[in-house]
Amino acid sequence: MVTPLLKRKRAKRVGEPPGSLIPSAPGTAAPVSRTLFSYDGSGYRETLLTGDIDFRALKEGSGVSWLNIDGIRDSHLLERVGDGLAIHPLALEDIQNPDLRPKIEDYESYLFLSFKMLRWDRARSAIDSEQVSLLVGKGWVVSFQEEREGDVFGAVRERIRTGKGRIRSAGADYLAYSLLDAVVDHYFLVLEQLEEAVDAIEGRLVGEPGAEPVGDIQRLLGQVTLVRRAVWPLREIVLEVLKEEYPLVAEATHHYFRDVYDHLLEVADTVDLLRDMLAGLVNLHITSLSKNMNAIMKVLTIIATIFMPLSFIASLYGMNFRYMPELSLPWGYPAVLALMSAITIGMIVYFKRKKWM
Amino acid sequence: MVTPLLKRKRAKRVGEPPGSLIPSAPGTAAPVSRTLFSYDGSGYRETLLTGDIDFRALKEGSGVSWLNIDGIRDSHLLERVGDGLAIHPLALEDIQNPDLRPKIEDYESYLFLSFKMLRWDRARSAIDSEQVSLLVGKGWVVSFQEEREGDVFGAVRERIRTGKGRIRSAGADYLAYSLLDAVVDHYFLVLEQLEEAVDAIEGRLVGEPGAEPVGDIQRLLGQVTLVRRAVWPLREIVLEVLKEEYPLVAEATHHYFRDVYDHLLEVADTVDLLRDMLAGLVNLHITSLSKNMNAIMKVLTIIATIFMPLSFIASLYGMNFRYMPELSLPWGYPAVLALMSAITIGMIVYFKRKKWM
Amino acid sequence: MVTPLLKRKRAKRVGEPPGSLIPSAPGTAAPVSRTLFSYDGSGYRETLLTGDIDFRALKEGSGVSWLNIDGIRDSHLLERVGDGLAIHPLALEDIQNPDLRPKIEDYESYLFLSFKMLRWDRARSAIDSEQVSLLVGKGWVVSFQEEREGDVFGAVRERIRTGKGRIRSAGADYLAYSLLDAVVDHYFLVLEQLEEAVDAIEGRLVGEPGAEPVGDIQRLLGQVTLVRRAVWPLREIVLEVLKEEYPLVAEATHHYFRDVYDHLLEVADTVDLLRDMLAGLVNLHITSLSKNMNAIMKVLTIIATIFMPLSFIASLYGMNFRYMPELSLPWGYPAVLALMSAITIGMIVYFKRKKWM
Amino acid sequence: MVTPLLKRKRAKRVGEPPGSLIPSAPGTAAPVSRTLFSYDGSGYRETLLTGDIDFRALKEGSGVSWLNIDGIRDSHLLERVGDGLAIHPLALEDIQNPDLRPKIEDYESYLFLSFKMLRWDRARSAIDSEQVSLLVGKGWVVSFQEEREGDVFGAVRERIRTGKGRIRSAGADYLAYSLLDAVVDHYFLVLEQLEEAVDAIEGRLVGEPGAEPVGDIQRLLGQVTLVRRAVWPLREIVLEVLKEEYPLVAEATHHYFRDVYDHLLEVADTVDLLRDMLAGLVNLHITSLSKNMNAIMKVLTIIATIFMPLSFIASLYGMNFRYMPELSLPWGYPAVLALMSAITIGMIVYFKRKKWM
Amino acid sequence: MVTPLLKRKRAKRVGEPPGSLIPSAPGTAAPVSRTLFSYDGSGYRETLLTGDIDFRALKEGSGVSWLNIDGIRDSHLLERVGDGLAIHPLALEDIQNPDLRPKIEDYESYLFLSFKMLRWDRARSAIDSEQVSLLVGKGWVVSFQEEREGDVFGAVRERIRTGKGRIRSAGADYLAYSLLDAVVDHYFLVLEQLEEAVDAIEGRLVGEPGAEPVGDIQRLLGQVTLVRRAVWPLREIVLEVLKEEYPLVAEATHHYFRDVYDHLLEVADTVDLLRDMLAGLVNLHITSLSKNMNAIMKVLTIIATIFMPLSFIASLYGMNFRYMPELSLPWGYPAVLALMSAITIGMIVYFKRKKWM
Repeated sequence: MVTPLLKRKRAKRVGEPPGSLIPSAPGTAAPVSRTLFSYDGSGYRETLLTGDIDFRALKEGSGVSWLNIDGIRDSHLLERVGDGLAIHPLALEDIQNPDLRPKIEDYESYLFLSFKMLRWDRARSAIDSEQVSLLVGKGWVVSFQEEREGDVFGAVRERIRTGKGRIRSAGADYLAYSLLDAVVDHYFLVLEQLEEAVDAIEGRLVGEPGAEPVGDIQRLLGQVTLVRRAVWPLREIVLEVLKEEYPLVAEATHHYFRDVYDHLLEVADTVDLLRDMLAGLVNLHITSLSKNMNAIMKVLTIIATIFMPLSFIASLYGMNFRYMPELSLPWGYPAVLALMSAITIGMIVYFKRKKWM
Repeated sequence: MVTPLLKRKRAKRVGEPPGSLIPSAPGTAAPVSRTLFSYDGSGYRETLLTGDIDFRALKEGSGVSWLNIDGIRDSHLLERVGDGLAIHPLALEDIQNPDLRPKIEDYESYLFLSFKMLRWDRARSAIDSEQVSLLVGKGWVVSFQEEREGDVFGAVRERIRTGKGRIRSAGADYLAYSLLDAVVDHYFLVLEQLEEAVDAIEGRLVGEPGAEPVGDIQRLLGQVTLVRRAVWPLREIVLEVLKEEYPLVAEATHHYFRDVYDHLLEVADTVDLLRDMLAGLVNLHITSLSKNMNAIMKVLTIIATIFMPLSFIASLYGMNFRYMPELSLPWGYPAVLALMSAITIGMIVYFKRKKWM
Repeated sequence: MVTPLLKRKRAKRVGEPPGSLIPSAPGTAAPVSRTLFSYDGSGYRETLLTGDIDFRALKEGSGVSWLNIDGIRDSHLLERVGDGLAIHPLALEDIQNPDLRPKIEDYESYLFLSFKMLRWDRARSAIDSEQVSLLVGKGWVVSFQEEREGDVFGAVRERIRTGKGRIRSAGADYLAYSLLDAVVDHYFLVLEQLEEAVDAIEGRLVGEPGAEPVGDIQRLLGQVTLVRRAVWPLREIVLEVLKEEYPLVAEATHHYFRDVYDHLLEVADTVDLLRDMLAGLVNLHITSLSKNMNAIMKVLTIIATIFMPLSFIASLYGMNFRYMPELSLPWGYPAVLALMSAITIGMIVYFKRKKWM
Repeated sequence: MVTPLLKRKRAKRVGEPPGSLIPSAPGTAAPVSRTLFSYDGSGYRETLLTGDIDFRALKEGSGVSWLNIDGIRDSHLLERVGDGLAIHPLALEDIQNPDLRPKIEDYESYLFLSFKMLRWDRARSAIDSEQVSLLVGKGWVVSFQEEREGDVFGAVRERIRTGKGRIRSAGADYLAYSLLDAVVDHYFLVLEQLEEAVDAIEGRLVGEPGAEPVGDIQRLLGQVTLVRRAVWPLREIVLEVLKEEYPLVAEATHHYFRDVYDHLLEVADTVDLLRDMLAGLVNLHITSLSKNMNAIMKVLTIIATIFMPLSFIASLYGMNFRYMPELSLPWGYPAVLALMSAITIGMIVYFKRKKWM
Repeated sequence: MVTPLLKRKRAKRVGEPPGSLIPSAPGTAAPVSRTLFSYDGSGYRETLLTGDIDFRALKEGSGVSWLNIDGIRDSHLLERVGDGLAIHPLALEDIQNPDLRPKIEDYESYLFLSFKMLRWDRARSAIDSEQVSLLVGKGWVVSFQEEREGDVFGAVRERIRTGKGRIRSAGADYLAYSLLDAVVDHYFLVLEQLEEAVDAIEGRLVGEPGAEPVGDIQRLLGQVTLVRRAVWPLREIVLEVLKEEYPLVAEATHHYFRDVYDHLLEVADTVDLLRDMLAGLVNLHITSLSKNMNAIMKVLTIIATIFMPLSFIASLYGMNFRYMPELSLPWGYPAVLALMSAITIGMIVYFKRKKWM
């Protein structure tokens, strides 16, 4: 199937007023998990939240507070976040829309970022795309992931815990960068899988003459397009961060965003390369089909060209005319056999010369 | 047919002075319906207009007035609107031209917007395109649709009636946004239909070897192009709204237009994706035709390669030479049969090895 | 023929100094016709000029003066115009060059515009391209067309005569707009002809299996390219008028030029669409050729696969071995016939299953 | 051969310091010819230089001095020019590099321009590309051509001699323009030759079914690319002259450079058109090969479909069964002949209906 | 194999904090070689460093100091360089990443440049890509190459030693230019190898009908893409140097960077040309396969068309009907032979006319 990347149902319900959230079905409350990290140069605190969130502490605490929410279907929670942090309803709606195009939006007191987390799903041999949204304020970050508890941000968490690198001494913008960087790092892993898949197809194309790779190529092209759709807008977003001088992103963090930008350019280059390679494989396949055909036709032509004259001669002397003098010659039969051999050898020489054999 | 999207006759008559309307044919006065909504934070009034329109009240009333006109052929009505609201004749002419490219134009005291409403016509399995024009002034909006009474704006009407969302407390620019948003929401529905159609073709391509999808692919490509032609210019229009700082569009409404802009980018991405997928299907079809051919030719070659030598041998011993010693040998016939079997088996082994069988 | 659009000989003679005109051949003075319109809000005067032109009156008269010259080969006349209105020699040379790319140039005291008039030549089934040049000064316009007296500007003339529209009350810039608009209106007529031609090819492709449309498609593509080469630069020209704020084009006329610009965008869109459609038709043709081939090969394979085994069996029992016990069995012949029928039926069933029949 | 345009050896020797000239081989001093034109409004002087050049007179003389040097291998001469006119070593190195991409560089006291002179070499049926470099100072121009004495600048020389046009009264910038214009004029001649070559291929494609034009098309595409590589950068150069307001190029000369710019746009358009046409010819050829194949296969299929059943019937009655009652019927033979005729006629009717015959 | 250019493992380890270096494996300390050049107008000193580096002398010495480090795996050394010269950790990480996209970054007190050194590996018939990084400060340059001791910078070293050219009298920016120029010079050598490889494929395509060049073309396209990926970003980098007016790059050095820029444009042009040529070769190959097929099918058709009727006639007179009057005619056999000859000659004439023979 070419089209799995289009299959997820759109969250936006036609005709609804903008900024309206999807009402949570009461019984099916998804198990939303919330973790709060607070840290500064001197230490950190990690809390698994179960009850209410103290947004005032989040906004006004010293150091950096990072609230991570796994699950975007709990509209009540989203509303409480929206109220507590004065988030625009459109941003909340965007958080709930898993098909959103990666975007950045400046709401002055905070930045809204949304992008795609990609992982390789070995079982489906396909890319697993998940929406990640960030709200980045002065001293706080709220991150949203879809239902599945993933370990994308595990490395970032570990770095806060161990105090490795400069994360604990830096601000919320650096945390936002770290989360984005963690996501972009996974893009490379996905690309490696895609490269392996392309190699596998190429191997099959060369090794098995009967291979039918066009469907697989098309499917892989779909996966590459999925990466492309995640990367292109994200590249623009990071460029905007570098250009627009958002007050929430410190000058010192720009080098880091520039680094992410370079990684994204590298991903984009590789995506283009993969597309070229897949197009090349289609070419290779078409010419190999054509070459196969030539080989088949050569066999047919050789057979027909040798045996048609022979059969004709045989039929000729199978005629029942009463007066066919050759038939009664004692050396008639050997002569015909000799003629037939001569024709056969002649044909073979001819084909050898034409490099058909 | 590839070309239905070009079939509607152009309204612009060659040689007419610019800004001249199409004279209404007296007997065939189309049943133009006019509805007027007036609302502000405190309440709303809905009127189905039959007589004259009080343009002064429309322009100077408190709150927002929305005049919706279904039908663009009544030139008298258009002229009265043009006089009452001081609309430029070129804008009036544009309202009557159903083939207009989506555009925005700033006439200082009002904005003129024109774009395409797309709906999926299940009967024709094709997109139904309809021109929508908006005149957006300070506190008033006039919207024009083509003859057919549609329910595109139904959701917006409902929101005004129920006061759901912030529409009743916002200005004319927010109403214009809401109408545009309602139209763009329908683009997603159209895209879903197109995606289903692409899937259906793909299914047929894989399932039925004799399918002839190129015509359908071409037709679908035409439909995708139609969406593209509606979306590309509209994207530029909304970008212009975001960039040009029209005094009639309040700063606060920008976030909403930015939201529409993101939706349009999403539509545009999907349109590109559909084009790629359709191109991929053509490729798939061409290689499958080629593979089919190979399969046919293999059958032919196998048959010919097996039976031509056999027939030759049979003809050989059907010759009527008087002196053919083999013919009188008692084991001649069985020997020939054995030779024939050996040849057949040899050929089959050869083809098995070449993976032709 | 693919290339008629390149066939006209270039007027620029290699090595000549710039701004030099083509010397009029004395005997062959082309019948150049000159008409002068002078009008203002109160009335108009129309003169067919035969003698000298009073350029001072043209430049200094109140209202607007429009001198139309049909024929660009009379270098003496061009020189007199150049002297009388102080036109730059390069502009005069450009007027005489029928292969000029559409351009606008600001010579401060006047604007020079050059663009292509396109008409559909039914006899040749091809587009007829003609150079139109405008010199637009303060209160005067001089227009140049090639030899042929055309009715392109007829509608504009009529509007001046009848005073319909706002032409009589507007300035020289509005007249220039009107002339340009008249030309662009004809582009739509040409596009309609091209669309019909594309439809005709498509019909033939579907209806007649033996059609050879590639030549026609190529020829049509050439015609579309011709429109494209007329429209693309013209679009840039009008955009320049809208952007550059030429003092000779009043602010109030901008809406009209914007209107022409939108029409040109529409033409450009349609041109792109036609190119896509023609490319689609080539695809359709290639796959239909391939499908045809498959059909032919199936017939051949079916015939060979049925008759080769049958013929082999017949030949087998045509052998002249003395000891072939089957030959003397009374039910030998019917048995062989039965075997042959069985093989035939088996093959037919096989082909039916493979959907080859 | 596709690649002749890459064949000339690069002058830049890897590892050499920048700005170093190629040492003249002592014995092989190429016959470099130097001509000096000095002119102003009142007259001109033409000198064939043999000894030293008086650079002070060149730079400080009244009027314009034009030194033309045919031959770029004489490094001693280049060094003397470099010393006498204070030319940057990089510019001197560029003059010696025949593979230089067309460029303009502003060295403040002079402009350095380099571009390609193209001529059609009838013998090789290919384009002859030659490097032309200009040093344009205040009141002086030095032009460099490769070894071959060409007549490219002959027309300019003639205009100086005769005083035709405004060249004698204009400055060094106008002279530079005239030289550039002379070169661009020749581009049109080259394009005409290419158009003729395209037409010739098209004619062969239509007229001779066995033509093999792909190699020629590829070769021609290479020639078109060569023009493209000469024109694209030159277009940018002239645009830079128009935009950057070099103090050495007077405002009044801009109209003339604008004229050259328009010519280059025209050349660029034609180059694009030729590429499209050549791509169209490849399409035409591929479909014609495919059609040819269809025709061949139809003949084969018709022959096989008619004669296989006939041969089968004949073989059937050639069997040697003892009990074949038909064989002894007196009307057996005529009946079989009648059956065979019926089959043949039936097949022909069938093929006629399928439009295969 | 199409994909060798993707094979090297990425140095960036997913999840590591940014700016962290790869820990040196203690036992496998790569033999890193360090050379220090110090020079000014009056002389130079060359030292092979073994112990610690005196960074203060490097930074504060008069003249220019150039530290060249071959080997990027020694993280301890990198850290010492980072400490001694106050280099940003991200730049250090980039130096260690051999897959980095070419980039330039301004860290105010120094510039960081990274680009690709390309060499043609004759053994593998492929391009050898190596990362080169430069740190350019005021009066000092540090260059990093990968493990292999290469002679890329040999010519620059020689020029410093001999004092040839202006290198000894110029600053650190000129040294940086010289190193970059040395690298770009090698691009031309690589292009020449690629051109030869393209020529070789073309020769094989024309000379050997059975050649299978698509794999080679694809592989070569991969090599061209590798050059493209090295050149495109480098071009942007040099353009940035020319535009951004880095204080570390003197105005006087701009002409030299402009020169490198022109060389890069030339490389980029040639890369595009090579891609076009390779695409052309695929076309050539596809049409030649198709033509081959036509030739094969013609042979088959000719053979079948001649021998099928002949065999049929022979079979006809091999029938065993008792009453076949022709059989007993004395001239029956010669008549049939004559008929057969007539048919054969007729067929040959027919094929000659159709130009099939």
